[in-house]
Amino acid sequence: MAENNEMAMDMEAKNQQFDEDLEEILSRLDASNYFGAREIMLKYNEVDIAEILEEVLDELGVEKVIIIFRMLPKNVSVEVFSYLPGDDQVEIINGITDREISFILDELDFDDKIDVLEELPANIVDKILDQTPKEERKLINTFLNYPEDCAGSLMTPDYISLQETMTVEEALHHIKTQGMDSETVYTCYVKHGGRELKGIVSLSALVTADSDTLVSELMHTDYVYLNVYDDQEEVAEAFKKYGFLAIPVVDNENRLVGIVTVDDIMEIIEEETTEDIERMGGVMSDDQDSEYLDIGVFKHAKNRLPWLLFMTVMLMITGTLIAQFEEVLSQVIVLVAYLPLLMGTGGNTGTQAATLIIRGLSVDEIDLKDVMKVVWKELRISIILGLVLSAFNFLKIIIIDQQSVLVGLTVALSMVIVIIFAKLIGGLLPMAAKKIGVDPALMATPMISSLTDMVSSCIYLFTASLILGIAL
Amino acid sequence: MAENNEMAMDMEAKNQQFDEDLEEILSRLDASNYFGAREIMLKYNEVDIAEILEEVLDELGVEKVIIIFRMLPKNVSVEVFSYLPGDDQVEIINGITDREISFILDELDFDDKIDVLEELPANIVDKILDQTPKEERKLINTFLNYPEDCAGSLMTPDYISLQETMTVEEALHHIKTQGMDSETVYTCYVKHGGRELKGIVSLSALVTADSDTLVSELMHTDYVYLNVYDDQEEVAEAFKKYGFLAIPVVDNENRLVGIVTVDDIMEIIEEETTEDIERMGGVMSDDQDSEYLDIGVFKHAKNRLPWLLFMTVMLMITGTLIAQFEEVLSQVIVLVAYLPLLMGTGGNTGTQAATLIIRGLSVDEIDLKDVMKVVWKELRISIILGLVLSAFNFLKIIIIDQQSVLVGLTVALSMVIVIIFAKLIGGLLPMAAKKIGVDPALMATPMISSLTDMVSSCIYLFTASLILGIAL
Repeated sequence: MAENNEMAMDMEAKNQQFDEDLEEILSRLDASNYFGAREIMLKYNEVDIAEILEEVLDELGVEKVIIIFRMLPKNVSVEVFSYLPGDDQVEIINGITDREISFILDELDFDDKIDVLEELPANIVDKILDQTPKEERKLINTFLNYPEDCAGSLMTPDYISLQETMTVEEALHHIKTQGMDSETVYTCYVKHGGRELKGIVSLSALVTADSDTLVSELMHTDYVYLNVYDDQEEVAEAFKKYGFLAIPVVDNENRLVGIVTVDDIMEIIEEETTEDIERMGGVMSDDQDSEYLDIGVFKHAKNRLPWLLFMTVMLMITGTLIAQFEEVLSQVIVLVAYLPLLMGTGGNTGTQAATLIIRGLSVDEIDLKDVMKVVWKELRISIILGLVLSAFNFLKIIIIDQQSVLVGLTVALSMVIVIIFAKLIGGLLPMAAKKIGVDPALMATPMISSLTDMVSSCIYLFTASLILGIAL
Repeated sequence: MAENNEMAMDMEAKNQQFDEDLEEILSRLDASNYFGAREIMLKYNEVDIAEILEEVLDELGVEKVIIIFRMLPKNVSVEVFSYLPGDDQVEIINGITDREISFILDELDFDDKIDVLEELPANIVDKILDQTPKEERKLINTFLNYPEDCAGSLMTPDYISLQETMTVEEALHHIKTQGMDSETVYTCYVKHGGRELKGIVSLSALVTADSDTLVSELMHTDYVYLNVYDDQEEVAEAFKKYGFLAIPVVDNENRLVGIVTVDDIMEIIEEETTEDIERMGGVMSDDQDSEYLDIGVFKHAKNRLPWLLFMTVMLMITGTLIAQFEEVLSQVIVLVAYLPLLMGTGGNTGTQAATLIIRGLSVDEIDLKDVMKVVWKELRISIILGLVLSAFNFLKIIIIDQQSVLVGLTVALSMVIVIIFAKLIGGLLPMAAKKIGVDPALMATPMISSLTDMVSSCIYLFTASLILGIAL
């Protein structure tokens, strides 16, 4: 592999270099110059090579990927494989021999192996399990049975077990004989009796302590732990909160069954964030693993349809309500020109409040008991914004549009009321959702704007009929 | 500290226990029963204690926090301090003696110390620096001078340096004498000549290798590195991509100046996500560090006003455009009832597309060169959705509203056109923003809905005048 001892590049220069190399690799592969492509690829580390293979698969198809994948050094190819997305792994598995599959699976870390097996079709999994030693087969089956998206499905059973009575020297010797080379080695677990977790001790504590210190003197017993059935969102929260590199996972009897390491959590956080953002944008997707471009148009349409149908019904009701004010509208047709302004302002101010509250709830900055603080804050904010925006609009209506003062007053007054309502709806609805156990992210733009559209148009037209003295 | 050897609780039970204990601590502190409060607090680890202190500060004020903070064991109090939010740290610093400040700062890890100094007022920083040895003062000043939000401001200079020619035994001995106990020890850095970074070697490789192996045999030279001036968003991307525990930071001459560790990155990812989500919801905040409840109402109003003013202007233009169709509207006043439907559908379908594209760009699933793929996909999706929704609306208008077929046709036809336009605007605008170097997150709901409102109302009323044969 190339050495980095030329002048250091910043991130932008590195990305540009990577893009150029990627183009060159694609064109060499397209021309079936495999050795030429391999030469450039090997300048990069395994994560980057995985990214290159993803592009090759997208652009040139699976055959070229398999040829170049087979040309990678064996140990590199296994690691590259572990960094590929699930569906790309399945495509490669389907194109290589059983012998190559076995080699890859044997070399993978246990948690990566479980991830791959979860993606593969059942008949291939059975074939693989047939060739696995009985003890490991049992363990694999246990892991495959944990519900997806829980701590049990994220953990690895590869961890270092120590005894309280060991000295540091004995502990380090034990670690050396176990010989694991991954991030799993940095926290060691001290068990009591059979499998009950007693405490944890970090490798750094062991390495920096005197050889004859006892493990029991170094271990922490106030460790943080996860339950196998804790949801992956809670797992991610625990890592964010404590900043640990690994957290032990125990079953209901406090027996240590595995550990979750921080490197697997980054992906989870990204998936959970994507889910939140999509829901806030009115998209109901059930797999955040799949990329936008890989999802078919019918699936995309299906993910978007529920919210659109809901909103259509809401907007129909709004239309029916507006139709009740036909008398006002037909007498002062110019009122129609300001309807979008009122509805849009309601939707936008409501969305702002909802966005902040949803995010605040999700990062634990806002608690359900803060509800009155939120109301009081949004009330004051909406009065400030209401005054500024309605003054601005009033002047524009009188001076530029040359409408009557009564029309200006109608718009200005209803705008203040609309903003107050919208901010309160936007602030309270996410909290109410959380209270009854519904995801607050569902109370973003689509829901808020549907509700505020309805409220805004009624407030506006009702105010108009009062100020302009038109009987309904 | 308490031991966890009772029956294991799941996350929910633990959170409930924590909330109960927190209530009890608050009520004991309120009654000035400090020893009683301390007793419960010490059941928890430093991160949890920091969370408790935050609550105490919010509920009971800074005096009680300082009393209880002083009653914590010295080593616990320093760590707790490092987990507190910046403004809470400043409040405590202002309430304790210089001697106590010096003690805390001396004990903090270097990167935490820099974080605290960045938050403190200049006169206090000067006083602290006066008492600092010259060498360290120089280093602190260098670190304080890196721009905020870049790799230089996130890194710590506390790392382990090794020589290529060391054996594993010598390397481990060197680590032991350096005696760092934090996560910084897990990757060691091999320098060449003066300070040029040559390679990295993991502590796990050292611990599991034979004592007489040379460091040069274990080290990786294809390491990933950051530049001191890389933006924190790029730093977070690198951690997400590679899953490393630490990444070395070099200056333009490839000299190692510090390392960034993964535990500091979680916060950055959270801040960057918050910024994206807020921008997508139309809030322009400049400090994602501050919590919703801690931000004053004028600041909140200021963060929300720019988008609201922009949207008001856009909605005014939409209103002026609608006024051009006064003739159509006054002849067929029922058309007004369907205006919100068309505008709402445009806004919502556009937001859905924009949300997916913005997120796809941000997690690197979508590339600028995919623009035609996005267009083609959104086009097909919008035809499917357009047909379903317009059929649904057509039937409702004819059957339930008992309107004429021509009105039904007007709404149905313009709905298909509106959805196609909205999906294309939603898909293309974020990509165009990225192309010209603007944050795609700004092209979410507020921008998209302002544009689609304008386009939708014109398409609708123009279609109406054509189908209903009314001259404009």
